[in-house]
Amino acid sequence: MPSLDSLRADTPGCAHRIHLNNAGAALPPAPVLRAMQDHLKLEAEIGGYEAADRVASDLEGFYTALARLLNTRTHNVAFATSATDAYARVLSAIPFQAGDVILTTDNDYVSNQIAFLSLQKRCGIRLVRAHESAAGGVEVEDFEKKVRELRPRLAAVTHVPTNSGLVQPVGALGKICREHGVLYLVDACQSAGQLPLDVEKIGCDFLTATMRKFLRGPRGAGFLYASDRTLDAGLEMLLPDMRSADWTGPDTYVTNPSAKRFEYWEMPPALVLGSKIAVEYALNLGLDWIETRVRLLAGLTRQLLQELPGVQVLDRGPDPCGIVTVHAPHWDPKRLFETLSAQRINCRVSPPLVAQIDFPRKGVAWALRVSPHYYNTEEEVARLVEVLKA
Amino acid sequence: MPSLDSLRADTPGCAHRIHLNNAGAALPPAPVLRAMQDHLKLEAEIGGYEAADRVASDLEGFYTALARLLNTRTHNVAFATSATDAYARVLSAIPFQAGDVILTTDNDYVSNQIAFLSLQKRCGIRLVRAHESAAGGVEVEDFEKKVRELRPRLAAVTHVPTNSGLVQPVGALGKICREHGVLYLVDACQSAGQLPLDVEKIGCDFLTATMRKFLRGPRGAGFLYASDRTLDAGLEMLLPDMRSADWTGPDTYVTNPSAKRFEYWEMPPALVLGSKIAVEYALNLGLDWIETRVRLLAGLTRQLLQELPGVQVLDRGPDPCGIVTVHAPHWDPKRLFETLSAQRINCRVSPPLVAQIDFPRKGVAWALRVSPHYYNTEEEVARLVEVLKA
Repeated sequence: MPSLDSLRADTPGCAHRIHLNNAGAALPPAPVLRAMQDHLKLEAEIGGYEAADRVASDLEGFYTALARLLNTRTHNVAFATSATDAYARVLSAIPFQAGDVILTTDNDYVSNQIAFLSLQKRCGIRLVRAHESAAGGVEVEDFEKKVRELRPRLAAVTHVPTNSGLVQPVGALGKICREHGVLYLVDACQSAGQLPLDVEKIGCDFLTATMRKFLRGPRGAGFLYASDRTLDAGLEMLLPDMRSADWTGPDTYVTNPSAKRFEYWEMPPALVLGSKIAVEYALNLGLDWIETRVRLLAGLTRQLLQELPGVQVLDRGPDPCGIVTVHAPHWDPKRLFETLSAQRINCRVSPPLVAQIDFPRKGVAWALRVSPHYYNTEEEVARLVEVLKA
Repeated sequence: MPSLDSLRADTPGCAHRIHLNNAGAALPPAPVLRAMQDHLKLEAEIGGYEAADRVASDLEGFYTALARLLNTRTHNVAFATSATDAYARVLSAIPFQAGDVILTTDNDYVSNQIAFLSLQKRCGIRLVRAHESAAGGVEVEDFEKKVRELRPRLAAVTHVPTNSGLVQPVGALGKICREHGVLYLVDACQSAGQLPLDVEKIGCDFLTATMRKFLRGPRGAGFLYASDRTLDAGLEMLLPDMRSADWTGPDTYVTNPSAKRFEYWEMPPALVLGSKIAVEYALNLGLDWIETRVRLLAGLTRQLLQELPGVQVLDRGPDPCGIVTVHAPHWDPKRLFETLSAQRINCRVSPPLVAQIDFPRKGVAWALRVSPHYYNTEEEVARLVEVLKA
């Protein structure tokens, strides 16, 4: 295992800032930056297509790395330009009919909720949310009851929400979906790179995520996993292109047999290469080690913030992860953000619009989100607390 | 007007290659490369969100530049991650019903054709293609007849196909669509940056394009235009997110009033900045000057290639543009590509799959595509011809 010093030396941003906004976009390590800058330069020197031809095997390496990250095959993974983009491509593959149920939770990502509501308006699907348990997180028994009674067309669960450290029991929910033959889509946008992800253990049909958060990859990059079940069933995007499918005659096309049916021909090769390096970087460190270190720092952050007068820690569930959310009635969110920024401490204030169910239930309108990564230090967390105290 | 020498000095790739693959991806000018590399570095130093906050006004500048390019307002333009992505977002906004007609042409882009065929399969739309005229290009009279008789839900026309120098009469077709109140979508992927584009003159409801081709911008970037008519009519993506719309309550959302309703929250800021610089670069040169120069070089290319024994120029229509396509029965496409590559001449061989209607009609299975840009020279064209002769 490399030392924390060497990991920080490999992260140029550590010298300038206390970056506790890894749930927003993490600081990329130097090799990720270099891969992207070098490829952009190569494109300018020899041409965009010609550069892609030259690094073809590295571009394929993205799929190899991603398959290792998720415990699957390269056949089952695809590049997307963001987690939202990946999510939309998957949703578009399901031919919803009026009356179809989408089963989700109270803590699903804001953008997913908007997409479901649009499908409700356009296709007449019925949106149902499983109850929240007393401890926080979806109540597994209620989820199972709704799967059994409503036979949803799709169960869609966000592994870790954007607005708290909650970790949903995606494996237990996956077991239920498998038993009842229900399509199961997991949004792993905030968990990818901070928690181990094993699509076999989760038992999902689809999984989507971004590169820029805990995976420390580029902005404008994401990915998806599609199970053999969904590929064999012929699920494909509503609007495929010449990479997702071959045009075989004026009125015929043949869908790509692999998960590349969820890709578009035009991709940003520099970002694909940066993504490859980022995933390999995480794999080299090991997701178990990363999880332990992130939980340690997040736990410390929660503990220290809890001790401040008037500060309420908002994270629920049995085993919260690397996203720490707190609220204090005497803080003004705008001034809070400005104060931290002035001290070169990067955090985010989550506004009401991102958590229309979660925040009202917790009795707050906004939350300060602090999201450490493994390259952060205990001293950085202490510094944040010191500033918040003052 | 800057001299050709200074334009070439500003294009690092000119020193290494004869780049005649601008219909694939053009060589970006140095300022475009620099803007992207600098922003990626800034992200690594201060954080991805924090970097975007810092360059917020430059990111807004993308919309200003784009609006100028298209003769519209910033309210009506949106960033997308490719032309195909932009096209899919627009198509997803139209609530097609079984029996709805999509009217297109024999020369629409392969990926669009596949998307139409998928809509045929999924939604039961009817795909109709207006006849090709004897001179090449869509027969305007037949297009009008079909608009009148079939009342299509959408007319979709590719301005310049990927597989020839044909320029479709998009303004004349737009006039017909306006008279009959038919939604009109123009794919300007190959025309943006080589021909002036004025959405008012074209009379389109939607226009989509890429950045990487004649606009000399980044790979993985595109854009779209949406008319006030479509915005006022409430057309929105099938799967909006938290940028396209605000989540206003557990079961409600409000769509963004502007064309940003066609955007996703997560974008690659480095590529948006590169796109801004690329569009401004084109505007500074002037699209009229660019068009004249590109047509001059393409005309010269056609003339010289035509003189080679056995070589057939495939471009049709009254006034072909910067894409030159040729075929010779005695050439082997694979060897041809390798020979040119070995001489550091960048061209592309278009395979059968990209032109399932156009190539069979022309009696060819593939075409050599030569696409000069304004920064190419007469000497470079002569060198290509010399190599092809040998």
